Amino acid sequence: MIVLMRSNATTRQISEVIAHIRAQGYDVHLSEGGERTIIGIVGNGSAIHPEQLSMMDGVEDVLKTSHPYKIASRHYHPEDSEIPLGNVVVGSQDLAIIAGPCSVEGRSPMLEIAHMLKEAGATALRGGAFKPRTSPYSFQGLGEEGLKILAEAREQTGLPIVTEVMDAALVPMVCEYADVLQIGARNMQNYALLHAVGESQHTVLLKRGMSSTIEELLMAAEYILSHGNMRVMLCERGIRTFETETRNTFDLNAVVALKQLTHLPVLADPSHATGKWEYVEGVALGAIAAGADGLLIEVHQEPEKAMSDGRQSLRPDHFAALVERVRHLAEVLNRRVPSTTSTHV
Amino acid sequence: MIVLMRSNATTRQISEVIAHIRAQGYDVHLSEGGERTIIGIVGNGSAIHPEQLSMMDGVEDVLKTSHPYKIASRHYHPEDSEIPLGNVVVGSQDLAIIAGPCSVEGRSPMLEIAHMLKEAGATALRGGAFKPRTSPYSFQGLGEEGLKILAEAREQTGLPIVTEVMDAALVPMVCEYADVLQIGARNMQNYALLHAVGESQHTVLLKRGMSSTIEELLMAAEYILSHGNMRVMLCERGIRTFETETRNTFDLNAVVALKQLTHLPVLADPSHATGKWEYVEGVALGAIAAGADGLLIEVHQEPEKAMSDGRQSLRPDHFAALVERVRHLAEVLNRRVPSTTSTHV
Amino acid sequence: MIVLMRSNATTRQISEVIAHIRAQGYDVHLSEGGERTIIGIVGNGSAIHPEQLSMMDGVEDVLKTSHPYKIASRHYHPEDSEIPLGNVVVGSQDLAIIAGPCSVEGRSPMLEIAHMLKEAGATALRGGAFKPRTSPYSFQGLGEEGLKILAEAREQTGLPIVTEVMDAALVPMVCEYADVLQIGARNMQNYALLHAVGESQHTVLLKRGMSSTIEELLMAAEYILSHGNMRVMLCERGIRTFETETRNTFDLNAVVALKQLTHLPVLADPSHATGKWEYVEGVALGAIAAGADGLLIEVHQEPEKAMSDGRQSLRPDHFAALVERVRHLAEVLNRRVPSTTSTHV
Amino acid sequence: MIVLMRSNATTRQISEVIAHIRAQGYDVHLSEGGERTIIGIVGNGSAIHPEQLSMMDGVEDVLKTSHPYKIASRHYHPEDSEIPLGNVVVGSQDLAIIAGPCSVEGRSPMLEIAHMLKEAGATALRGGAFKPRTSPYSFQGLGEEGLKILAEAREQTGLPIVTEVMDAALVPMVCEYADVLQIGARNMQNYALLHAVGESQHTVLLKRGMSSTIEELLMAAEYILSHGNMRVMLCERGIRTFETETRNTFDLNAVVALKQLTHLPVLADPSHATGKWEYVEGVALGAIAAGADGLLIEVHQEPEKAMSDGRQSLRPDHFAALVERVRHLAEVLNRRVPSTTSTHV
Repeated sequence: MIVLMRSNATTRQISEVIAHIRAQGYDVHLSEGGERTIIGIVGNGSAIHPEQLSMMDGVEDVLKTSHPYKIASRHYHPEDSEIPLGNVVVGSQDLAIIAGPCSVEGRSPMLEIAHMLKEAGATALRGGAFKPRTSPYSFQGLGEEGLKILAEAREQTGLPIVTEVMDAALVPMVCEYADVLQIGARNMQNYALLHAVGESQHTVLLKRGMSSTIEELLMAAEYILSHGNMRVMLCERGIRTFETETRNTFDLNAVVALKQLTHLPVLADPSHATGKWEYVEGVALGAIAAGADGLLIEVHQEPEKAMSDGRQSLRPDHFAALVERVRHLAEVLNRRVPSTTSTHV
Repeated sequence: MIVLMRSNATTRQISEVIAHIRAQGYDVHLSEGGERTIIGIVGNGSAIHPEQLSMMDGVEDVLKTSHPYKIASRHYHPEDSEIPLGNVVVGSQDLAIIAGPCSVEGRSPMLEIAHMLKEAGATALRGGAFKPRTSPYSFQGLGEEGLKILAEAREQTGLPIVTEVMDAALVPMVCEYADVLQIGARNMQNYALLHAVGESQHTVLLKRGMSSTIEELLMAAEYILSHGNMRVMLCERGIRTFETETRNTFDLNAVVALKQLTHLPVLADPSHATGKWEYVEGVALGAIAAGADGLLIEVHQEPEKAMSDGRQSLRPDHFAALVERVRHLAEVLNRRVPSTTSTHV
Repeated sequence: MIVLMRSNATTRQISEVIAHIRAQGYDVHLSEGGERTIIGIVGNGSAIHPEQLSMMDGVEDVLKTSHPYKIASRHYHPEDSEIPLGNVVVGSQDLAIIAGPCSVEGRSPMLEIAHMLKEAGATALRGGAFKPRTSPYSFQGLGEEGLKILAEAREQTGLPIVTEVMDAALVPMVCEYADVLQIGARNMQNYALLHAVGESQHTVLLKRGMSSTIEELLMAAEYILSHGNMRVMLCERGIRTFETETRNTFDLNAVVALKQLTHLPVLADPSHATGKWEYVEGVALGAIAAGADGLLIEVHQEPEKAMSDGRQSLRPDHFAALVERVRHLAEVLNRRVPSTTSTHV
Repeated sequence: MIVLMRSNATTRQISEVIAHIRAQGYDVHLSEGGERTIIGIVGNGSAIHPEQLSMMDGVEDVLKTSHPYKIASRHYHPEDSEIPLGNVVVGSQDLAIIAGPCSVEGRSPMLEIAHMLKEAGATALRGGAFKPRTSPYSFQGLGEEGLKILAEAREQTGLPIVTEVMDAALVPMVCEYADVLQIGARNMQNYALLHAVGESQHTVLLKRGMSSTIEELLMAAEYILSHGNMRVMLCERGIRTFETETRNTFDLNAVVALKQLTHLPVLADPSHATGKWEYVEGVALGAIAAGADGLLIEVHQEPEKAMSDGRQSLRPDHFAALVERVRHLAEVLNRRVPSTTSTHV
């Protein structure tokens, strides 16, 4: 951290800033004689509040010289983190393809689609039992009944289950049934929930908030990691911008930047990013070529009858074709989509 | 709701759309013979999923013809809702001025500032006991200890307490101490929390999410209202944009639009909206002149020592001057800031 | 400007950075011995490219310590700049109210509305002769014919004329007829045009680009000022955000911030900022209370027949009522709206 | 176009709307008897102003039922448009790789880099002779001298030249030297310029404005196309959002959507989209996999000495490696990067 003093700062003001920094246990280095005095803080300075410093008399600005996240940083852990998920290892050469309907709508359609997805090449199954809906009058999900259906689908297909948890109080229940706890975009900064999933030591899929910066996403991950739970996968799902042709704007830069800034795996959700099924394949292929470690894809047998997100859901045959295109693309990227019958060793 | 069929839609496709609508219990009116067939749904159509319709063969688009919120709408309740808060009635001619530090930092400073604010003309006291912080390594608030200090401040000054609740599980505890439950911007779509504060029947201050639309804010309010809890105050606190000179962008349009779209009171938070104390007064005056029913202002005895948000906190003397300017402005707006010693009858 | 070296920067890398800075004629001050070496540049460093420095080996970051604008800055010119416009002085205690239709649609309606606006209290007349339209198939304005009509309206009413110029080649022609050259939002960074209006020495109304930052607006002003043309008025007209209820988002913060950062007058355009006439009055009053020096308001005799922007145009009676409300508000703000018959001395 | 009448609209109001539509030469179809009357306009209705209709008494809303662009639409021209550019045909199976420095900085470095780029596999050369710079105090380009240098580089390497034109008055001069006229992001809605390049019949590279929607980009293209100049290439170069880690946000959705909405070729500029050279390769590969027809890449021999945009410029060896990776990727996408020595037949 570096403190820029105003050009007209008094000696007394400079001394008070130095005393403030020393009082928190840090040493300083001074650069005097130029246009203005610059005070460098020796060490990481993490106990110092930059805001407090910036309010002291004579201070012009306080400049941060490092990222605020630590455990999430690639400096802390230079190798890619690898997180097992069924027959793939996310973050390795493997590409994870997590697919399913937006909501679990009933036992029979869920089991049916689960088999279709397994057949088509999915590596994990997604489906919402608890649904965050903009309207209190919309379908809110089947709750625990939905979780039981998902568990049965896993039993029948062997596919691991990814499902959203929306409230800290429900973490233990969702852990009983799910392999991966999904934190939805609206809850990315629900800190009670982040603490709870951190404590759970369960694998977490953390989706970027729709107006969260890359740094805020990594800070949300840091909340989970700070509980010693290192099994965190990130997901770019589109951010909110002025564009109206698509539901959100898929931030391809974020995929590329995250792969450099952090060791955590990075997935892409082209269904939510676009909001229109006809744009899903293009964005999915682009994300993989840019370095994403996998995909989340919404699939529904009859999108026109889906209780939510039908507009952005692929039909199973489109999904199967997409998996084939991803597999083909993986070849030139030195990645692979495991065949559905293979088992990870 | 109106369904536009594609210009090449077949008679069979049109019949299937009509059958789908009738199956949900609605009648239709057809406009044929033009460039394309248009199907109007008679009644409010609230049981119909527009997304399902939009996925049916032959459908070009589905257009909504009304707002999705109901109880929050001014159509539902044409008169301004009035919500008592200490010696003011929010939503009436009165202007509410809710002030205090970002966080409760200790008993003695909190009691001291409470008296100063009462003196200066505040109508309610704010302070965070549970703090949503971007970093897990930052100060997270004093918890229940903080709530007790706030209750003591109320006892001493008579000012009602506004404080944030961040998790559904904590609603009962916060209700014990606080007069108003604040839902922070990051939790505007934490539906478990919205349900819980709705159930509580406690007065709620609902802050707009930093990237939420006006309609989404009203839908979040609808979650609370749908539990029969009509005591909801909205708050514009700035939205996230590309601008970097200020922390957020205060959306003045939203203040004006909300006053027309809903009967609920609308407050303004210029502290978070600007992030810089030197811009707080200008934005506060602008919001009041545009029709806001009150203000949330961060005030700290020593902003340079604040544990959070010092950069945007006013000193008590600045705050007192601001209250005077608001009182002066109120005169030409047919509004009033009650004097601190008056009691509302 | 300050250069942060990486913690592992070599002595040689540090020497090369210093040599680079000295080669441009600046001295440096070093802070060594801390976590990293910091190199401060003595003087304003304006001849140095921060980007070049940031690419040198061993450099972590280059931090700017001052605003890039100079003549536009309040440091350069602490007093408010005052710009005469008809019977007001913009930037003084006077409030300017510039009103008129979006486009000049014909001689007779323009003359009619000009008299109505004069009567209602407008201090200047606006109207577009050259229209920037999203579609090549929309009405593009009457061109020079429109300018002649505006000049006739001035002759009849005494109101000065504000009209947009869209291309550098047209600046001389527009100068012949208009009192104020308006640079529209889409052209805020049309540098050929900025140079041309700078050269003209004519009064300029510079509208903020719909996705331009406050700093970029001031840099665009700097282009004009750098030609010695000091008669520049700025205008906040709403920025582009994710919100869809309104056409743009009026950035009230910008009004407040600009009044502190620059000496140039700041106007507000609530018509474009909201896109809906029913929100214009609220935003107009808010802008004035926050410190704006005047307003741009679209007014049309029959908004439902306007060739453009009818949705956001006030009827003359609404406009007259708005002027009265502004005049009333001005009293408590120590500002004034001159009466239409007064002449500025 | 469809007009929704308010539920309480009178018969007289409905008649007036119908009369207004008929007066412009269109027939209507009515849907009465439901919640409200709906008036459909037969034909494309392009002569009708939706804004005028929306302001008529009794009208609730006016809904557009088709895109405002015509010639740019894929409905108008279902096949991909193919535009020759040196030894590639943009819009065909070929991928165009346009590379070069941000600015032409001098004869010798430009000729040197031109040969390097040709060697590395570039298919065209870019370089700015006229530079749009935020600051009037920054390097503004070499002007016509720069164009002459570019022409010499073409003569020596055979690579076609892409360069920006910033003002309508300069179009004839730039046409003398350049193969492709680039319209920069800041000028996307400079209509005088769009008309001039349309008239020129020269090939145009139209970059998306930093806060322009996909529809606005297509409308800007429509301005050019409406002059009969069909040789327009579009370019996604990142949009402005709240994210600060990157200079802009590359909108991958736009690449995918544009390929479906229009027949015009779509290029990607990962240099401006990211602002950091280390993210360029990932975004470039993602754009190509998503369907882009080519790339614009900034390359500089010594980025740390570049007069502009050094931070986002690749070194020639990195660029050569990127071309190899694109060529490899093209194989699985059924695309190709012509070898530098091949000539298009």
